[in-house]
Amino acid sequence: MRILDIQAIEDIALGAALLGTGGGGDPYVGKLMAIQAVEEFGPIKLLEPDEVPDDALIVPTAMMGAPTVLVEKVPSGEEVMSAFNSLESYLGSKIYATIPIEAGGVNSMIPLALAARMGIPVVDTDGMGRAFPELQMVTFHLNDISATPMVLCDEKGNSLMLNTVDNVWTERLARNATVEMGGSVMLAIYPMQGLQLKKSGIHGIITLTEKIGRAIREAKVNRMDPIKTVLGVTNGFELFRGKVVDVARRTVGGFARGESKLEGIDAYRGQALTLNFQNEHLIARTENEVLITTPDLIAVLDAETGRPITTEGLRYGARAVVIGIPCHPHWRTAKGIATVGPRYFGYDLDYIPLEERVLSNKGGQE
Amino acid sequence: MRILDIQAIEDIALGAALLGTGGGGDPYVGKLMAIQAVEEFGPIKLLEPDEVPDDALIVPTAMMGAPTVLVEKVPSGEEVMSAFNSLESYLGSKIYATIPIEAGGVNSMIPLALAARMGIPVVDTDGMGRAFPELQMVTFHLNDISATPMVLCDEKGNSLMLNTVDNVWTERLARNATVEMGGSVMLAIYPMQGLQLKKSGIHGIITLTEKIGRAIREAKVNRMDPIKTVLGVTNGFELFRGKVVDVARRTVGGFARGESKLEGIDAYRGQALTLNFQNEHLIARTENEVLITTPDLIAVLDAETGRPITTEGLRYGARAVVIGIPCHPHWRTAKGIATVGPRYFGYDLDYIPLEERVLSNKGGQE
Repeated sequence: MRILDIQAIEDIALGAALLGTGGGGDPYVGKLMAIQAVEEFGPIKLLEPDEVPDDALIVPTAMMGAPTVLVEKVPSGEEVMSAFNSLESYLGSKIYATIPIEAGGVNSMIPLALAARMGIPVVDTDGMGRAFPELQMVTFHLNDISATPMVLCDEKGNSLMLNTVDNVWTERLARNATVEMGGSVMLAIYPMQGLQLKKSGIHGIITLTEKIGRAIREAKVNRMDPIKTVLGVTNGFELFRGKVVDVARRTVGGFARGESKLEGIDAYRGQALTLNFQNEHLIARTENEVLITTPDLIAVLDAETGRPITTEGLRYGARAVVIGIPCHPHWRTAKGIATVGPRYFGYDLDYIPLEERVLSNKGGQE
Repeated sequence: MRILDIQAIEDIALGAALLGTGGGGDPYVGKLMAIQAVEEFGPIKLLEPDEVPDDALIVPTAMMGAPTVLVEKVPSGEEVMSAFNSLESYLGSKIYATIPIEAGGVNSMIPLALAARMGIPVVDTDGMGRAFPELQMVTFHLNDISATPMVLCDEKGNSLMLNTVDNVWTERLARNATVEMGGSVMLAIYPMQGLQLKKSGIHGIITLTEKIGRAIREAKVNRMDPIKTVLGVTNGFELFRGKVVDVARRTVGGFARGESKLEGIDAYRGQALTLNFQNEHLIARTENEVLITTPDLIAVLDAETGRPITTEGLRYGARAVVIGIPCHPHWRTAKGIATVGPRYFGYDLDYIPLEERVLSNKGGQE
């Protein structure tokens, strides 16, 4: 067990935005929520997974919706509280701790804000080790944990509890309600026991995001190359450097979908890169080769500062470095690939692990 | 208290279809559900409203969706049961009795089927005294009773509990989910106390529908004019007689919307009638005059048998008699007109009580 202070929250927000791979919302918005909650309600306890009793009730929390909307609708912690309270009273048992469902600027912060408000700990685990756009895209789902009963709340005071036959129906009905409720809502979802969490979660994720955020911050102070520093802490690969020349983004069916194009600079001059995203970056390719596909992580960093740029933060002319990070082994299983591989998202591409692509493309330079 | 036998159910289904004013679903489907439940689980107790304790928990039940879909998806009583059970466990108290929310071929029968299955009584009350297409269109709403907590279930096993800030949000979110769930679902809604029911319900409605159904049945046996008989028991007015020459129907946003045209016969030869409906008939007019508008009741009867024809049952060439029935006084209040008057449905018409229109139009002939 350790206590997360304000500095830790700042670092986690920054590192989480990087693992958010373009989605997960604006780290600034999330950071404000969490810091305000800590200042108002006191510090946050972070537990190691093995500190959680096997029979304890753990409930992940997150915001659902298009990041493009998250930016406009800053959530009040009240909403998540009410989602948690209705779920507690429905399950008739006390919630022991919460966790993030994914890494992302907003979704790594909401559990911290809630934990401070409710005076419960956060466990150093999540269900993605990155961000993904749909509710069934979690390692809990790979381990046959039901997303329901789940509660969904909007800022107006409407709430909705779902019990579905499978997690795909959860996604379908919750997405539909989210759009109707204005594009973003708060969730209390995947209620599970401590034992299930230990078996199915991606552990150490909050500590990793903190380490990434700290590295970016310290690189600046120590005048180190921020990109090299990030590649070091993430075991990532530099895939491309370029200027943003085009961004096409639409919010459809509750998702921010689009494509951005980068024109190569430095060693990549003369090449062009295309990034496809659905909230998160899914594919990065040049004219002649695919450099990386989901579920491996694609992060776009500011070339100067190494700070991650979200898909909605991409601006024409920005100088960016695109890096790739190998995903957690859970995602490289057959069910993992079926759930979040390129074909699920409609791309006629096989998943090839990033490390193999880097070798065969000879495109990666660590 | 009295017991409803199979004959009573047959008569109620038929009479309810008439008060369903073109909506409320196919009485045949509803009848089968209720009769099967009675044969399997035993007879149904019908209570007078004043037999209900003031603090008893009463929960109306109904099917929500486009009648065009109801015809294709015959509901299993199981769905309603599960809706009731989740609401009971959420409210943490036993449901004393159920009631219909509206009069209609299916929605008058579902509470009977459920009552038989659950061994609870039905109260001789509903929230419309006819059928209307939206959830807030009930006298309970006029009396500021909240539609939520409510539960919505589909036949696949998905269920959804709503808690909303107002009854218009309930309609909006439930309608949306209904469409996503396949066009029709089962509801447990407007949980209320006995005292609220007594104050806000439309009482004696089940007995009235039974009387109407019986009258139509006996008119046939006794070779009486079925239309005159119906007008007698409903205090209705004959508005038009004609042949169906056109029916335009679309299922949009979970509703069956459309328009049908009748060409006058007998005393109405040379005239044409247009009926507008959204699940239920809303307006009836000839080229030169409006004969009746919502909330007064518009029923289309088979000219031969006096049996009601639902909007989806209207067939080209059918010989029909259109009758008007004054709505319950609850609907003639300012809030009533605002909730279900012609302007709510987008018609630029004032509500004028049927009786006045009949006098001024000199069109009604009793």
